[in-house]
Amino acid sequence: METNIMDPNCPSRLVFQRIGDKWATLVIQVLEPGPMRFSDLRAKVAVVTPKVLTQTLRTLERDGLLTRTVFAQVPPRVDYQLTELGASLLPALKILRTWAEQNVGRMAAAQDEYDAAIEDAVLSAAH
Amino acid sequence: METNIMDPNCPSRLVFQRIGDKWATLVIQVLEPGPMRFSDLRAKVAVVTPKVLTQTLRTLERDGLLTRTVFAQVPPRVDYQLTELGASLLPALKILRTWAEQNVGRMAAAQDEYDAAIEDAVLSAAH
Repeated sequence: METNIMDPNCPSRLVFQRIGDKWATLVIQVLEPGPMRFSDLRAKVAVVTPKVLTQTLRTLERDGLLTRTVFAQVPPRVDYQLTELGASLLPALKILRTWAEQNVGRMAAAQDEYDAAIEDAVLSAAH
Repeated sequence: METNIMDPNCPSRLVFQRIGDKWATLVIQVLEPGPMRFSDLRAKVAVVTPKVLTQTLRTLERDGLLTRTVFAQVPPRVDYQLTELGASLLPALKILRTWAEQNVGRMAAAQDEYDAAIEDAVLSAAH
């Protein structure tokens, strides 16, 4: 398959969409140390509802980024684990995360400045 | 500001949201070589409507990732250019882009396999 991310219809855009999903990127990063049960995952990925976490896990399993393993025991135990493909995304996510943590303050300040300039323009136009 | 991207309410999630916007990431990458006029940008970012491109440029300008410069000439000329902050995102975008171009085929194959397994399960249940 020919891929060219500069083409908005290129299937590789799917990756950027997944990166834009906050729960998906959190789950991938939380699973870095190793397999984890649903309840532990939920405790780590704070404030997510069980329904949304289940949907996120299903999407990532369908993408081939993690596996779901059911252990036949009582009560049943289900483990989630990154595949080699899923783990290979971690370095890129870390670079983005570092950029985000270092620069989001500058982005927020730029937004405040932009909004204040628009407000000033609106006020001058009204007088 | 304390940032921790593992917290879903952390403002640094804004960065991941922006990365998830296909037009925003395309525009940033197209502007890498230097300032560009709207019409040239539009030609490079294929199939985008002028309205959506204008909205994307405004969002990125508000984020402090690019500047918009109006030249007083006839017809008026408007240039868009990455700020130092915008350009600092390029290395992370390139790593993601390389990952996407190399691995989206594996993601698509995993999706096909997952969907086929579900279809099989539905068919067996019906018999």
